[in-house]
Amino acid sequence: MRKIGIVTSGGDAPGMNAAIRAVVRTAIPKKMEVIGFKRGYAGLLNNDIRHLGLRTVGGIIHLGGTILRTERCPEFKTDEGIAKAAEVLKENDISALVVIGGDGSFKGASKLRRASGIQMIGIPASIDNDIAGTDTTIGFDTAVNTAVQAIDKIRDTAMSHGRVFIVEVMGRRRGFLALEVGLTVGAEVILVPEVTRDIEDVCDTLIKSRKKEKEYSIIVVAEGFGDSSKLKNEITKRTGFEVRLTILGHIQRGGSPTARSRLIASLFGAYAVDKIVDSDRSGVVGLRDGKLVFNSLDYVTENEKTLDTDLLRLAEELAI
Amino acid sequence: MRKIGIVTSGGDAPGMNAAIRAVVRTAIPKKMEVIGFKRGYAGLLNNDIRHLGLRTVGGIIHLGGTILRTERCPEFKTDEGIAKAAEVLKENDISALVVIGGDGSFKGASKLRRASGIQMIGIPASIDNDIAGTDTTIGFDTAVNTAVQAIDKIRDTAMSHGRVFIVEVMGRRRGFLALEVGLTVGAEVILVPEVTRDIEDVCDTLIKSRKKEKEYSIIVVAEGFGDSSKLKNEITKRTGFEVRLTILGHIQRGGSPTARSRLIASLFGAYAVDKIVDSDRSGVVGLRDGKLVFNSLDYVTENEKTLDTDLLRLAEELAI
Amino acid sequence: MRKIGIVTSGGDAPGMNAAIRAVVRTAIPKKMEVIGFKRGYAGLLNNDIRHLGLRTVGGIIHLGGTILRTERCPEFKTDEGIAKAAEVLKENDISALVVIGGDGSFKGASKLRRASGIQMIGIPASIDNDIAGTDTTIGFDTAVNTAVQAIDKIRDTAMSHGRVFIVEVMGRRRGFLALEVGLTVGAEVILVPEVTRDIEDVCDTLIKSRKKEKEYSIIVVAEGFGDSSKLKNEITKRTGFEVRLTILGHIQRGGSPTARSRLIASLFGAYAVDKIVDSDRSGVVGLRDGKLVFNSLDYVTENEKTLDTDLLRLAEELAI
Amino acid sequence: MRKIGIVTSGGDAPGMNAAIRAVVRTAIPKKMEVIGFKRGYAGLLNNDIRHLGLRTVGGIIHLGGTILRTERCPEFKTDEGIAKAAEVLKENDISALVVIGGDGSFKGASKLRRASGIQMIGIPASIDNDIAGTDTTIGFDTAVNTAVQAIDKIRDTAMSHGRVFIVEVMGRRRGFLALEVGLTVGAEVILVPEVTRDIEDVCDTLIKSRKKEKEYSIIVVAEGFGDSSKLKNEITKRTGFEVRLTILGHIQRGGSPTARSRLIASLFGAYAVDKIVDSDRSGVVGLRDGKLVFNSLDYVTENEKTLDTDLLRLAEELAI
Repeated sequence: MRKIGIVTSGGDAPGMNAAIRAVVRTAIPKKMEVIGFKRGYAGLLNNDIRHLGLRTVGGIIHLGGTILRTERCPEFKTDEGIAKAAEVLKENDISALVVIGGDGSFKGASKLRRASGIQMIGIPASIDNDIAGTDTTIGFDTAVNTAVQAIDKIRDTAMSHGRVFIVEVMGRRRGFLALEVGLTVGAEVILVPEVTRDIEDVCDTLIKSRKKEKEYSIIVVAEGFGDSSKLKNEITKRTGFEVRLTILGHIQRGGSPTARSRLIASLFGAYAVDKIVDSDRSGVVGLRDGKLVFNSLDYVTENEKTLDTDLLRLAEELAI
Repeated sequence: MRKIGIVTSGGDAPGMNAAIRAVVRTAIPKKMEVIGFKRGYAGLLNNDIRHLGLRTVGGIIHLGGTILRTERCPEFKTDEGIAKAAEVLKENDISALVVIGGDGSFKGASKLRRASGIQMIGIPASIDNDIAGTDTTIGFDTAVNTAVQAIDKIRDTAMSHGRVFIVEVMGRRRGFLALEVGLTVGAEVILVPEVTRDIEDVCDTLIKSRKKEKEYSIIVVAEGFGDSSKLKNEITKRTGFEVRLTILGHIQRGGSPTARSRLIASLFGAYAVDKIVDSDRSGVVGLRDGKLVFNSLDYVTENEKTLDTDLLRLAEELAI
Repeated sequence: MRKIGIVTSGGDAPGMNAAIRAVVRTAIPKKMEVIGFKRGYAGLLNNDIRHLGLRTVGGIIHLGGTILRTERCPEFKTDEGIAKAAEVLKENDISALVVIGGDGSFKGASKLRRASGIQMIGIPASIDNDIAGTDTTIGFDTAVNTAVQAIDKIRDTAMSHGRVFIVEVMGRRRGFLALEVGLTVGAEVILVPEVTRDIEDVCDTLIKSRKKEKEYSIIVVAEGFGDSSKLKNEITKRTGFEVRLTILGHIQRGGSPTARSRLIASLFGAYAVDKIVDSDRSGVVGLRDGKLVFNSLDYVTENEKTLDTDLLRLAEELAI
Repeated sequence: MRKIGIVTSGGDAPGMNAAIRAVVRTAIPKKMEVIGFKRGYAGLLNNDIRHLGLRTVGGIIHLGGTILRTERCPEFKTDEGIAKAAEVLKENDISALVVIGGDGSFKGASKLRRASGIQMIGIPASIDNDIAGTDTTIGFDTAVNTAVQAIDKIRDTAMSHGRVFIVEVMGRRRGFLALEVGLTVGAEVILVPEVTRDIEDVCDTLIKSRKKEKEYSIIVVAEGFGDSSKLKNEITKRTGFEVRLTILGHIQRGGSPTARSRLIASLFGAYAVDKIVDSDRSGVVGLRDGKLVFNSLDYVTENEKTLDTDLLRLAEELAI
């Protein structure tokens, strides 16, 4: 009987539990034993394990966060850490490790595969959707909807007061979240790290917007675009409008996963087990153009996904 | 300057307003005038119009229902009705009509095109997702999430009482909604019109489920599978379990659209206008494998979309 | 060291877990030991217990349902059942039993007190709010909000189609839920078991409503008012309007408790422990005019709370 | 026929629209005419009016914000401003003005009454609940629930990572919101402007909490307690725990009002009209110990409501 391990690593994302459930529930009927390592790579290094049976993963499909927990682990970034982790996997007789996480987690998995020779299967989970080789990630749809619902509340105040609202969403390096949120709340301006945008130009858009009798404006800005407080002050100074800033923060990371995040997680989890059954090839599962795909760890960790600038343009066209 | 019309027809679906907004906001900068016909084809027959400007469609992207309203219209099903509608379009000098609705609405559009020679562009909006040529429809993702959130509430009671819960979701002819809802709430049994399923077999699944120490069970059944009350009584009689039935009903149709329903609506609306600019060819926009497509009215009205039975199988495998 | 028991009984109500938490967390520092009986009186009869420590009740304040579960128990309605339960309490050396539930549960507690001489403290938990001596109950505010949010979704469809919607809410014997829901969704008509209302008169209201250019109407009806399907058919026949019926059902019972349900549960739980510390007098805690009160079991089980018909009148005045 | 005016003033609060609806719908049948002044006192100064009929206030009971809008108005704080406002009221032949807002708005109303001799009726609307003479205000329950739902999401991440989370809620001068939110999310520490609390002591609580095997902690802090970033840094430094800060911001102000906020608004609105019918006495409506009350403008503007420190103690006892 083969034994596989699961680890959830990096920032938590809604739907991680649905993915754990899918891996366990498809692996066990295929005669595998499943153990979870707790607290991400930190727990792996400390051999902190939890046996995962059919019932352990019952009643969790709708829960945010991860029942295996996750933790940052600087030690895992060292060669000694990797070597120790490889040893723990061997001691536990693990023949494949499923890593549910993001870019950084897959880089770790890549090194761990080289050190251990053990099969590594990555499952993309990230509220930022910033993973190459897949159109979407576990948790992204939930984070988008959380932000959208928050901004719909802010809209009430924006309309009542006739204000400009800047809403900062997560995304230190990438603007996928900001773009999809901005488009679906009808933001006049969407600011992402991938596209430079002049403050002058932003103010022009706002001023034109008022002239067209729009009584309030929403700007969605990704964390990584720049200093949002400075942005707020600049816009206030240049336009004279009443401007408010809200940083959505950690609420975007939690909450019960949306149907779509649960669906993606279920598909990814089951497909990950298929890949373990098929061969001992390592890689990262994903969804491209509506089809499940399996990319190499190298492809995923060495490439950057492109932001759809056509969509960005459409978003702003629709907000005239 | 070209003049185009919009009509929302059939059952309302969350995201219809976002689609109206997208059509208006992309058409006007392309030098078109846009008018809406109120109350579906009924309003078209009565020349009940509303001019749609850039501001008319402001502040509606997040609203459920349709600002143009919709109504059933038996008269439109007659040849006289079609002829009269064709006349109204000509009187208003309409060069293209955008029909936001479902299967039945597109059948009407098809006849209207033949009678009038005017370009008809269909935008698929339906909480049932039962439209050929597109993977998804405006409103489907919202309806799925509404049902999922409702069932997550029912789960509390099911767990507390150790009961079997049957939840009937919409879908008179098709099981797309039931399937996606069933999979994402972790239902033990999913019953859809497309797949016959023995009551004996359903009871077996429930009984095995209890033996595996599952303390409660959820059955998701599409409206069109059969008589849910009868189902409840049969299961009670055969298993002796405490069984409850909830029919979700009209809550599935309303509510603020999810981000995904707004996104799909925005893409469809803008693409519909592109198609009007491109040529005078009629058709229905859609999304296939992540790409926007344009199908003929005949293709869409004469074909049935296939239910993914692999996904159905997966759903039940994951609920062991 | 005194030992107290907790049982959750009858239908589950959101906030029961917050009440369990409050009892445990205030009792333990006062040097009491706390055990829970599982599955309501059924578990009490079978001595099915669970020790409740400070950590057992961690992370549950926001969960619907009850971690102790609940079950109907016909045996407890017999004298033998009561006698057996009294024995189990004595065997476990229980000096006070906290019963979280409704009217029926308190009747059982009353008999159990007579049979055992053990102190019984009732905590009113019921989505129906139908318990004498208290203005509100655990779960009521949550159920009201769940119904209101559901009806807000239905409103989208009602507006879009210009329909009459009948929404049936829980309340077999009493109309507290229907009244508060009806008032806060702006229902034209609210039908409760306590007030007879002529169908003629209901139809008149709807017809007048249309004449005043209200384009849609919402009727909120309590389960116990009568046969809602019949009501729908009658209204359709007499007015010719398009009428739809939705029965909200079990979604009203579940879900994460609102802040108010958690607050009430916390106050009740802590006050119940105060009453155990104070004396060995049995009774039911409650909230009257903003103050915590302690009523006798007899008072609570022998009286009926009055529905505020002024509020009913106001609700309908506001919906003109 | 008497003519009354309505103004919504200060920060918007969910339920203001329900209050406007209640005033209009109870006043008109009592033979009054109702006009709204737009944009708070700013619109009053500019005679910016909107006639409010029965249908104008239809379909708004569930909407956040205020259809009359609101704006800050420095001019109204001057004697000239007050005199001008008095004149506008007289020109419009207003015999009573209903002011829906907070403390500051009532101070303005008090001056305006003195300057004009016109009856002023205050309706307390404030997410902060910081108005003397009433136990609750329009919008407070909604803001509490919005914050609670946001923190329930953050809880997922806190649990998954084993972190300390500081969540800053609104409340520049008062801690009512922080207290009710803190109690109902089960926060270990609640920091309010009314109670000084040593950082040493806060850290002690957190450290003890970990020793008792609590794996994560939530601190709820009112805006007015002090600098939250500094608090975060201090706690990190002293405990070595991973600490995160989220400032909930403007989402607390918006959103569809809860049932309770709509109920309070309806009661207040109808009672305000009663008071206009009864006499020409000015004052502020409110709810004390479950009963509607009518306080003088002086009482309300010259007194501070007391924070319930017993409740604060209970909250922290329950979070052990």
